[in-house]
Amino acid sequence: MKRIVLLRHGQSQWNLENRFTGWTDVELTDKGMEEARIAGRLMKKAGIAPDYYFTSYLRRAIHTLQIAAQEMERDWVPVVKDWHLNERHYGALQGLNKAETAKKYGEEQVHIWRRSFDVLPPLLTPDDPRYPGNDPRYAALSADELPLSESLQDTIGRVRCCWEEFIVPSLRSADTVLVAAHGNSLRGLAMMLQHLTATEIVDVEIPTGRPWVFEVDDRMNLLRQYYL
Amino acid sequence: MKRIVLLRHGQSQWNLENRFTGWTDVELTDKGMEEARIAGRLMKKAGIAPDYYFTSYLRRAIHTLQIAAQEMERDWVPVVKDWHLNERHYGALQGLNKAETAKKYGEEQVHIWRRSFDVLPPLLTPDDPRYPGNDPRYAALSADELPLSESLQDTIGRVRCCWEEFIVPSLRSADTVLVAAHGNSLRGLAMMLQHLTATEIVDVEIPTGRPWVFEVDDRMNLLRQYYL
Repeated sequence: MKRIVLLRHGQSQWNLENRFTGWTDVELTDKGMEEARIAGRLMKKAGIAPDYYFTSYLRRAIHTLQIAAQEMERDWVPVVKDWHLNERHYGALQGLNKAETAKKYGEEQVHIWRRSFDVLPPLLTPDDPRYPGNDPRYAALSADELPLSESLQDTIGRVRCCWEEFIVPSLRSADTVLVAAHGNSLRGLAMMLQHLTATEIVDVEIPTGRPWVFEVDDRMNLLRQYYL
Repeated sequence: MKRIVLLRHGQSQWNLENRFTGWTDVELTDKGMEEARIAGRLMKKAGIAPDYYFTSYLRRAIHTLQIAAQEMERDWVPVVKDWHLNERHYGALQGLNKAETAKKYGEEQVHIWRRSFDVLPPLLTPDDPRYPGNDPRYAALSADELPLSESLQDTIGRVRCCWEEFIVPSLRSADTVLVAAHGNSLRGLAMMLQHLTATEIVDVEIPTGRPWVFEVDDRMNLLRQYYL
């Protein structure tokens, strides 16, 4: 039996300010850091000892992982940081206040952008400072890989790369892996682990700071899943 | 031109208590964390932007790296954690107060243990709780690799593995790498970079929290070295 533990980062500064965040690299709030500490303690108490860590390129996920690792006294565990685990890119909505956006575009339109499977939020243009091609951390990505905006489907499509290239192979030697990431990238992993449909995954809400444990067999068939 | 930056961790709890530390996994003090922040700021101000990080399995080095990375706003940079970069293993001296040890064994003997190139401190026995074979993080190591004690020469011998297997190859794609580690493991890297003799390396004192920059050409020939 192998275990994959999903951990959604705690409150960030822009969660607090009710703004669309996406790939914007905002920091955890004090509350978010406390959520990470609690998550680490929950895993330690449950005897969960990850052999590999996976996280995104965004500091709210990286710091959630580091804080939880420190609580588990497993700082030394190898970590893969992969942009494929980033939050869904929210295109030209990034940075906007969610309430103001609802006023401007209507509640229904915002609901569609936030809760549909395959609808893109408004696109960035490559000359926008928010375009990831302008950020040195994405310098090695091809133009095709650099999003102007993403649907949930797009996000899940790229999360699959990390799943297949890194997470599944790591489980050949590891018993337990921990993935500290974001609401929508973790939805991608939950969708693959549970074989959910598009209609099902849009209704899955992953709470912040609660380790979500998936027990699988050697062929990645799901045996059991539960929250700590 | 490529750059290798060496960073020795800041003050740890046992530095403060004047105890032999070695592989004991003690935490940084508040002062040590501040040293790491300053190191990060120095690198940022000097325009040093590492493309790879390397560190040991010990939290005082890992946390030094994480804190410096946060100051540089480069949390997302890939990191390799490698036990080969651990501090020198101090054998049965680990945990002992340095002043008390000098009283018990004599100043001269302690000086020999601390400052010779090839003399081993007293060995641990495998039933000692301090023996690394009893620590899950070293579970994948063979009995040959698990030290009962190490001379500086032994430490440098294993540091060479990380240098040849990971650091040098990373510089094929990276321009700048940062190694956050320990006094004696960093001596190993400095010895290789500067082609020092055994007599020379024992006299090298690396200050804590001061980034030490080595500029090399594509064949790892040293062009220049300086502290920030």
